[in-house]
Amino acid sequence: MKNKIIIEPIGVIHTPNKEQKGTPIQPRGAKGIKGKIEIFKKFKGGLLDIDGFSHIYVLYYFHKIAETSLKVKPYLDDFEHGVFAVRSPKRPNKIGLSVVRLVSVENNILHVENLDMLDQTPVIDIKPYIPDFDIFEVDKIGWLNGKSENCDKIKDDGRFSNE
Amino acid sequence: MKNKIIIEPIGVIHTPNKEQKGTPIQPRGAKGIKGKIEIFKKFKGGLLDIDGFSHIYVLYYFHKIAETSLKVKPYLDDFEHGVFAVRSPKRPNKIGLSVVRLVSVENNILHVENLDMLDQTPVIDIKPYIPDFDIFEVDKIGWLNGKSENCDKIKDDGRFSNE
Repeated sequence: MKNKIIIEPIGVIHTPNKEQKGTPIQPRGAKGIKGKIEIFKKFKGGLLDIDGFSHIYVLYYFHKIAETSLKVKPYLDDFEHGVFAVRSPKRPNKIGLSVVRLVSVENNILHVENLDMLDQTPVIDIKPYIPDFDIFEVDKIGWLNGKSENCDKIKDDGRFSNE
Repeated sequence: MKNKIIIEPIGVIHTPNKEQKGTPIQPRGAKGIKGKIEIFKKFKGGLLDIDGFSHIYVLYYFHKIAETSLKVKPYLDDFEHGVFAVRSPKRPNKIGLSVVRLVSVENNILHVENLDMLDQTPVIDIKPYIPDFDIFEVDKIGWLNGKSENCDKIKDDGRFSNE
């Protein structure tokens, strides 16, 4: 197996979230936060027919996180959990995942809403969000039981910031 | 912005899907396909409390895809679409996303079900799947309207294979 995979950003997100502290922790808590995903010109052809979808996955790189950790205390709990059992940014590969609302497409710009990403975040993939593919009935949500519904109330308190 | 991001696999997926042709195209079509996600020992600490979740996102690298393309003809349609409007593997950054059922955890091994990945696929992240974070009501699904429900019937026909 290759032990290094090279990823090239396909674009950049422009959002009003200028610093970690105060940024919503999930799209669910980012209602009405509007911005733009600028897809670099060389990848523009890949946007054909994206305008048919109301929601898209954005995969991105947590560019402001310098360190990673295998155990982290997430926003929604007072205890540490393994990093693969939380959605915090301080992960071995600093890849973030958000489902945002796609409002319109203009040339190489996606106008989007519900943005929980920091301004200038590099984008590494866009995928259409498709209920038949992406909605699953779950049996259990571990430490988030009784807590996950607070994801729209809590903001980033800066705990993962290096600045 | 950094124009190269380096990703290091955190593990590898062991599945019965030995070749592209015949592999399910989505977890929804992979019911009962069981396998293991082996998390490399150095990342084992990140699994703490993952056993509380019934479903997890697996982010992985399409290691069998040599070329990428901005326009692709997906499995579920006879027409080409932009690669960011489809879920096909032939993408600029070859990152795949599947929600699988987590059955049990044994040391650094996740026993999982509903696997639409090829055997030996490198894993780059694991995140818990949380309905409050991840389920969205959509208005439209573009070219997949009337087609997405067939994702459990159609298998990979080998069109993205290089072999």
